[in-house]
Amino acid sequence: MIAILKAGTPQAQIDNLIHWLEGQGLTIHLSYGDYYTVLGLVGDTSSLDMELLASLDIVQSVKRVTEPFKRCNRDFHPDDTIIEVPGTDVKIGGGNFCLIAGPCSVETHEQIIGVARAVKAAGANILRGGAFKPRTSPYDFQGLGQLGIEMLVEAKKDTGLPIITEVMNVNQLPLFEDVDIIQVGARNMQNFDLLKEVGKLKKPILLKRGLCATMKEWLMSAEYIMSEGNEQVILCERGIRTYETYTRNTLDLSAVPTLKGLSHLPVVVDPSHATGKAKLVKPMALAAAAAGADGLMIEVHNDPAHALCDGAQSLTPQQFADVAKTVMAVREVVK
Amino acid sequence: MIAILKAGTPQAQIDNLIHWLEGQGLTIHLSYGDYYTVLGLVGDTSSLDMELLASLDIVQSVKRVTEPFKRCNRDFHPDDTIIEVPGTDVKIGGGNFCLIAGPCSVETHEQIIGVARAVKAAGANILRGGAFKPRTSPYDFQGLGQLGIEMLVEAKKDTGLPIITEVMNVNQLPLFEDVDIIQVGARNMQNFDLLKEVGKLKKPILLKRGLCATMKEWLMSAEYIMSEGNEQVILCERGIRTYETYTRNTLDLSAVPTLKGLSHLPVVVDPSHATGKAKLVKPMALAAAAAGADGLMIEVHNDPAHALCDGAQSLTPQQFADVAKTVMAVREVVK
Amino acid sequence: MIAILKAGTPQAQIDNLIHWLEGQGLTIHLSYGDYYTVLGLVGDTSSLDMELLASLDIVQSVKRVTEPFKRCNRDFHPDDTIIEVPGTDVKIGGGNFCLIAGPCSVETHEQIIGVARAVKAAGANILRGGAFKPRTSPYDFQGLGQLGIEMLVEAKKDTGLPIITEVMNVNQLPLFEDVDIIQVGARNMQNFDLLKEVGKLKKPILLKRGLCATMKEWLMSAEYIMSEGNEQVILCERGIRTYETYTRNTLDLSAVPTLKGLSHLPVVVDPSHATGKAKLVKPMALAAAAAGADGLMIEVHNDPAHALCDGAQSLTPQQFADVAKTVMAVREVVK
Amino acid sequence: MIAILKAGTPQAQIDNLIHWLEGQGLTIHLSYGDYYTVLGLVGDTSSLDMELLASLDIVQSVKRVTEPFKRCNRDFHPDDTIIEVPGTDVKIGGGNFCLIAGPCSVETHEQIIGVARAVKAAGANILRGGAFKPRTSPYDFQGLGQLGIEMLVEAKKDTGLPIITEVMNVNQLPLFEDVDIIQVGARNMQNFDLLKEVGKLKKPILLKRGLCATMKEWLMSAEYIMSEGNEQVILCERGIRTYETYTRNTLDLSAVPTLKGLSHLPVVVDPSHATGKAKLVKPMALAAAAAGADGLMIEVHNDPAHALCDGAQSLTPQQFADVAKTVMAVREVVK
Repeated sequence: MIAILKAGTPQAQIDNLIHWLEGQGLTIHLSYGDYYTVLGLVGDTSSLDMELLASLDIVQSVKRVTEPFKRCNRDFHPDDTIIEVPGTDVKIGGGNFCLIAGPCSVETHEQIIGVARAVKAAGANILRGGAFKPRTSPYDFQGLGQLGIEMLVEAKKDTGLPIITEVMNVNQLPLFEDVDIIQVGARNMQNFDLLKEVGKLKKPILLKRGLCATMKEWLMSAEYIMSEGNEQVILCERGIRTYETYTRNTLDLSAVPTLKGLSHLPVVVDPSHATGKAKLVKPMALAAAAAGADGLMIEVHNDPAHALCDGAQSLTPQQFADVAKTVMAVREVVK
Repeated sequence: MIAILKAGTPQAQIDNLIHWLEGQGLTIHLSYGDYYTVLGLVGDTSSLDMELLASLDIVQSVKRVTEPFKRCNRDFHPDDTIIEVPGTDVKIGGGNFCLIAGPCSVETHEQIIGVARAVKAAGANILRGGAFKPRTSPYDFQGLGQLGIEMLVEAKKDTGLPIITEVMNVNQLPLFEDVDIIQVGARNMQNFDLLKEVGKLKKPILLKRGLCATMKEWLMSAEYIMSEGNEQVILCERGIRTYETYTRNTLDLSAVPTLKGLSHLPVVVDPSHATGKAKLVKPMALAAAAAGADGLMIEVHNDPAHALCDGAQSLTPQQFADVAKTVMAVREVVK
Repeated sequence: MIAILKAGTPQAQIDNLIHWLEGQGLTIHLSYGDYYTVLGLVGDTSSLDMELLASLDIVQSVKRVTEPFKRCNRDFHPDDTIIEVPGTDVKIGGGNFCLIAGPCSVETHEQIIGVARAVKAAGANILRGGAFKPRTSPYDFQGLGQLGIEMLVEAKKDTGLPIITEVMNVNQLPLFEDVDIIQVGARNMQNFDLLKEVGKLKKPILLKRGLCATMKEWLMSAEYIMSEGNEQVILCERGIRTYETYTRNTLDLSAVPTLKGLSHLPVVVDPSHATGKAKLVKPMALAAAAAGADGLMIEVHNDPAHALCDGAQSLTPQQFADVAKTVMAVREVVK
Repeated sequence: MIAILKAGTPQAQIDNLIHWLEGQGLTIHLSYGDYYTVLGLVGDTSSLDMELLASLDIVQSVKRVTEPFKRCNRDFHPDDTIIEVPGTDVKIGGGNFCLIAGPCSVETHEQIIGVARAVKAAGANILRGGAFKPRTSPYDFQGLGQLGIEMLVEAKKDTGLPIITEVMNVNQLPLFEDVDIIQVGARNMQNFDLLKEVGKLKKPILLKRGLCATMKEWLMSAEYIMSEGNEQVILCERGIRTYETYTRNTLDLSAVPTLKGLSHLPVVVDPSHATGKAKLVKPMALAAAAAGADGLMIEVHNDPAHALCDGAQSLTPQQFADVAKTVMAVREVVK
């Protein structure tokens, strides 16, 4: 870390600052210039409060030289992490592509079994479905909860597809024993206590990007999970909040190559939630694959009772099969 | 709610949609035009999934006529809510102004007692201090936890000031018995399970605006708390995330009159976290008071060991006293 | 257009409003409900001031049923516009892909000729190069101006590649006689007087998206050009401003399928300016092609004197050749 | 400026870089560390292309130590600039407050004279009115142009109020001879050619903040004007674009104390355009005054034919008089 001091800072205050920094285990390299003084802070600066340092009266600015994340940092772990889903041959990362598909919410036994069989036939290798649903309004459907998880587990038995579903708080975790991959949603990306708890588990965690999280904040949240011992983290880009209102969120595909440069963790993309529009799912899925994503998470429904809503962000199994096939062709070309 | 259907929608599909909507307990008023057909949905639309409706192929757009929030809606509750802090004479809202002050984190017994006495002398009527701290990095100081709350309680006994501190997850709530006002932080504004739990309590909740929450999402989060029975919610504007990097966040003071128009709940402003710069705290505190805020939440420190960091976002007790005095003068002029 | 009136609006005020609207040549369909009154405005609402209407005391909200853009609207012009660059066989749109490449700024005769030959060999069919440069600081290099255009014209004669360069104000237009495609930059997307002037020309205009323009504002700017008679407009996505700081802008690739749905105009993508990082250009170029873009605009340099800056957003001709080849393979797969 | 080089950069490349920097007239101070090498660049770095330097492969990051703006920088000009409007006793800045009021657009002779008299009586000391109007749609009213300016000049003669109106391109400037203050609008904040032209004039320029301009970009645009010799620049905050849709823009009042810290130029605030809602104008005007603004720009209408639109962002003269009076009382308290 580099701290640039303001011109004319009295030596006594510089000494005072150096003393404080050395008290935190750092070695200080001092460089005086005509117009500025630079302190080079050598040692483990990951626990130094950079914002506090920057706020000091005598400090003009502070610059990190090394990133504050360690366990997810590609510099210290050059090889791609490959997540293996236990009890299956599904792998994610390191050249292994995953296709996660399923309905927004688990609704009935028939629905989830039907969708599971359909997406499996269409090429999906992981089944998704919401049991606990974060909803903006307390008056909206909040999901089937435990019953929804049980239905997912049945669909898994029926099809052999591993399952992923979202956890919303630490007390729900005991219900997730038979869930293969646990999703931490965008709204919980900085629910640090939840991150610590899933960090104590021995199963893969899919961590969605927060609604307005920077890529570095997102990696710091992955770091929370990894710092507790669970290194099986999958990052999932799902769009960020911008001023543009035509799409629900703005899918930030530059996050894919950026994160794969900064980190060794796999990166998947959710074009369904990002765009909120079924007709944008295919082009964005293809674009994600072309950008180097390690997988896709796509909403698929198969419920005749809801044929009504065929314009929603969900695809039909037929549409999904078409996306899956073209995605694979794009991957062949770009890899 | 108004649904505008696309031109040329077959009557059979219109009938199908009307049937579905009536099945949800709504009465439908139909209006045919040359270029569009409008459905007026009358009844309780608060539980209708507006996004689903908007996504239907035959629907061009959907528009709410009434807001989806009820309990916090000024239309149904014209008088200002006045929060009374039990066991004290402190009131918030309805013309009652609160000055919440204290350190970012509780650090030691001496520190918190010292600050508490100083801010009380300077005009504060509520003491703040962080015990559980949400930090972006797992390697940063996470707060003293239970010990921090105990120190706050001692400071309350010493000074008589009611105390406010932040809760981070539902399992911590038993530790908050002696806390007068519970804060739900920006990162937890959409931690819906936490909102539901604090909604079951009988004490005031200060709900900070999420990092990129719209005002309506924020009110929906207040609605989560109120829908469980706790109507003592204080809204706290603390800046939103924008592209501007000079300030930590962009303080959105237009939220103050807007929220006071939409809702009867009191609105306070935290200029310290919003700006991240001590020198901006006074002008933004004055501006908040001029805009009609019901209170302020300001960081104040008083720790000689940290005199070093006097440029941080925290004010000294002397600076705070000056802010408090001028704020009161502004209130006299604008009320 | 639909206007929803507030509950309880006196009939006299409704009549007054209808009178005013009819005075603007509109026919009004009135629909009374228990909780609201809806006015359907039929006729040419494109010149009605929607914001003014929405601001009336008696109006709760206003909703457009038809888009305010006409000439660029796919509803009225279902076939893709195909731009033909005069005097060449280069076409853009309707299945024709363009590869625009060249240096950020034209610097010397040797540089631009060298780059032109190199990008042509690598597959580019249009040469770009900045002569008038919009720079944030008045102290930064402002481009060679007229001399830069002359050098571009020489490079065109040498290679046969048509040329594109940016205009910054209406008075420069006489210098652009030999320029094949005129670029209107992001900062001028709402320089309406400039849009009107280039709308009077008979040559293709590449209109970059404004730094924080919505897609609809962007289309309205295209409409400015087209409403003056020039229908040869190419839209160029170049990233939008968000809170994310890792990339220079956030490339919004969902704009590609969205715009191609709303409009018949061709859409190209500039991954170089969007990301500001050479290593992100290839993945984003591939993603743009996969998303259905009609072309790419990529910065390429070839100046040994600047070998120093090989980490910039510019690619070398070798890197560009690799991108071009893979982009074409992606196009084969997704079309 | 500080450039931090990557660990392990070969000495030859460091020497190469130093040679290049010295060729630009800079002196280089080199500081080697165990983990990084720091170059301190001493001299006039304002014309150095910081983005280019940062993009070099061997450079990890670059940090400005001094701001890139000079003429508007308070460090080099500690006293407040006071703008004197020629031929009047109106001053702006340095403790002098201005109240700019008038209609959005000049519509008729009677309207502008009527509003001018009314706002003068209510306390305004400058008259505003749009003659050339930047409109998102080519089909919206574009203003009366030259005729509008003539009407403004008549209103000036009638009332003695100096006038301000917006210029949209360089060719209109000859029409602005009798205009006292020329406004450069938000959409033209980075129309650099226009900035240079108004920089050659000898009259005050009111420069609105761009729709998504950072404060530093805004100051760089002021610098464009000042670098041509015209130092009479007034900055006008008018809201920035964010994800929040309830207000038209998000008024960034923290810009007021921030800019007054960074620069000596006066800062005024336009609460009408920022919020787009008449009911928010008063609280935001008061807040702006409390935050230390040097003036306000407020839309006022007085046209009986438009009594219909009394809910718009415009105030009536009576409402404006109330705002003016309370603003002055706030100023008394905070100064």
